[in-house]
Amino acid sequence: MSIAQQQATVKSNSTSTDRTPLDKLSALLSADMLKVNEKILLNMESGVSLIPQIASYLIAAGGKRIRPLLTLACTRLYGDTGERPFNLAASVEFIHTATLLHDDVVDGSDQRRGKKAANLVFGNQASVLVGDFLFSRAFQLMVEDGSIKVLKILSDASAIIAQGEVKQLTTANNLTTTMEDYIEVVSAKTAALFAAACEIGPVIADAGEPQENAMREYGMCLGIAFQIVDDVLDYSATQQKLGKSIGDDFQEGKMTAPVIIALASADAQDKEFLTRTIEHKDQKDGDLEQMQQILLKYNALEQGMDMARSYAEKAKNALKDTPQCELRELLADLITFTIEREY
Amino acid sequence: MSIAQQQATVKSNSTSTDRTPLDKLSALLSADMLKVNEKILLNMESGVSLIPQIASYLIAAGGKRIRPLLTLACTRLYGDTGERPFNLAASVEFIHTATLLHDDVVDGSDQRRGKKAANLVFGNQASVLVGDFLFSRAFQLMVEDGSIKVLKILSDASAIIAQGEVKQLTTANNLTTTMEDYIEVVSAKTAALFAAACEIGPVIADAGEPQENAMREYGMCLGIAFQIVDDVLDYSATQQKLGKSIGDDFQEGKMTAPVIIALASADAQDKEFLTRTIEHKDQKDGDLEQMQQILLKYNALEQGMDMARSYAEKAKNALKDTPQCELRELLADLITFTIEREY
Repeated sequence: MSIAQQQATVKSNSTSTDRTPLDKLSALLSADMLKVNEKILLNMESGVSLIPQIASYLIAAGGKRIRPLLTLACTRLYGDTGERPFNLAASVEFIHTATLLHDDVVDGSDQRRGKKAANLVFGNQASVLVGDFLFSRAFQLMVEDGSIKVLKILSDASAIIAQGEVKQLTTANNLTTTMEDYIEVVSAKTAALFAAACEIGPVIADAGEPQENAMREYGMCLGIAFQIVDDVLDYSATQQKLGKSIGDDFQEGKMTAPVIIALASADAQDKEFLTRTIEHKDQKDGDLEQMQQILLKYNALEQGMDMARSYAEKAKNALKDTPQCELRELLADLITFTIEREY
Repeated sequence: MSIAQQQATVKSNSTSTDRTPLDKLSALLSADMLKVNEKILLNMESGVSLIPQIASYLIAAGGKRIRPLLTLACTRLYGDTGERPFNLAASVEFIHTATLLHDDVVDGSDQRRGKKAANLVFGNQASVLVGDFLFSRAFQLMVEDGSIKVLKILSDASAIIAQGEVKQLTTANNLTTTMEDYIEVVSAKTAALFAAACEIGPVIADAGEPQENAMREYGMCLGIAFQIVDDVLDYSATQQKLGKSIGDDFQEGKMTAPVIIALASADAQDKEFLTRTIEHKDQKDGDLEQMQQILLKYNALEQGMDMARSYAEKAKNALKDTPQCELRELLADLITFTIEREY
């Protein structure tokens, strides 16, 4: 083997081991994802130019496209199912994008996907209305597909997401929030769309109720694990890797897993700190760093990760009676990746 | 006839002439509307108490319930059609309520239906999210009904409404807005839901495409007339009758029919006034009164009403091949009322 060949082999090996399961899933489904991206671009068009402008600002910013990938994977797991998944995967991404636009208005976010948040660039008004447009367009795509079952799954998910977001408003700055409240919020605002994105796969493929339930459970548990890890990363990641500000949850006084865990064991002084910063929203320079110290002291990030790992385990179990193939392996690897990612 | 009997007759006559066609429609369909109200109350329930709290704040504030009434009337015009219209009329009212919640956030409104706007009482965040919830719930109700055709009509309408609202953002404070732009905004943001509310009547009743088109045209033209009158009343009504602040459109620099008409004939001095107050948003005490004088000078309110009347005429024509009955008479009277109302 020539040196050049050796170098090429090393490079290809290292590329292959560096690639995340999400990258591999994208690569395996790249022809399908191309079609989904076409549908996305086509359907965010409008005679009112501000609409594609804002939609593409957010959608072109990339993001992991994890939800449409899940829909594709959970459909193709059951063989070739034609073109139906494309519209529906685009529909799932539109619902997600609409919730991001509204979330950023609600949270007053500064950054999203490594860029200035859309509400800061285009204003809250446009963000609310373009979110409404994308949400409506999602339903138009489902109607075009024509399955009432899919429409039920995704309209139920949408209602649950909004309900979860409202509940989150009422738990913010509220130290009486329990871990059950938190899991309810997380299941609704994040995991419900993961679950729906996965469940519609076997529905499209007509694979029967046990498979629908299995994929729904997989998506739900993956989504809960994903959000818990997100909430841990909000205290532990580096801003560069995360692509959004860290400490946002702290600043907004969100009651996430790490906070609830720390609060349960906190001594009087730390409780006082949490009351001032989270309940009374009275924060000053250095408070985020002190909060991070408190979370370390009570091992709250690690305990949060343990919770995430237990949902990851459930997600893995949900896959056991689904068709054995490369896609299933990648779906399983995706769970591990969700837990181990640093962003 | 005894004096008491005479008095009773006079009273009943005067009551009957004082009642608006909307009141009469409500009375004729009161049993149905009771069922619709039950559906509305039932479906805004949620374990997250802030949701029914905000939804009922707005829905209990009354409003004219004109859209669900239109759905009921346009269904019952074709005979008894069972229980289907109840869920769908509630769905139409939920879409309307969701857009009101989002509109008030976008416009920064102070008043709605004679009360403090929901965003001021509960905050913009909750208004955005509860709007999303009601919107999702509307689709859940349609899914429960199960008609893809109805889902298509209402998801198309929802996308068009959002698009119209975004277009309105881009026309605000923009003196180059044409009457065509204005009619496009009005057709989308208001008339599309009127049209859809009416069209689903013959769809539910399975009355055939010509009837669907006729009722759609009726709703569309009624909706355009309704909005033009609204925009005239925003300069001419009394606040007490309107149940919301007058001059809101002026303050927000909205390019409505009266403004576009006046601008077309305005002399240099009046143009300067419009540029300062509407384009540059530089308004001071007394400007609303001066604006009203300018609208009078160019006969802009009366010309706006003429436009509304021409759409009213089209709405009347649309009814000519629909079943002749008391309901149709009331639908026709509703057009006249829309034009002649003072609120």
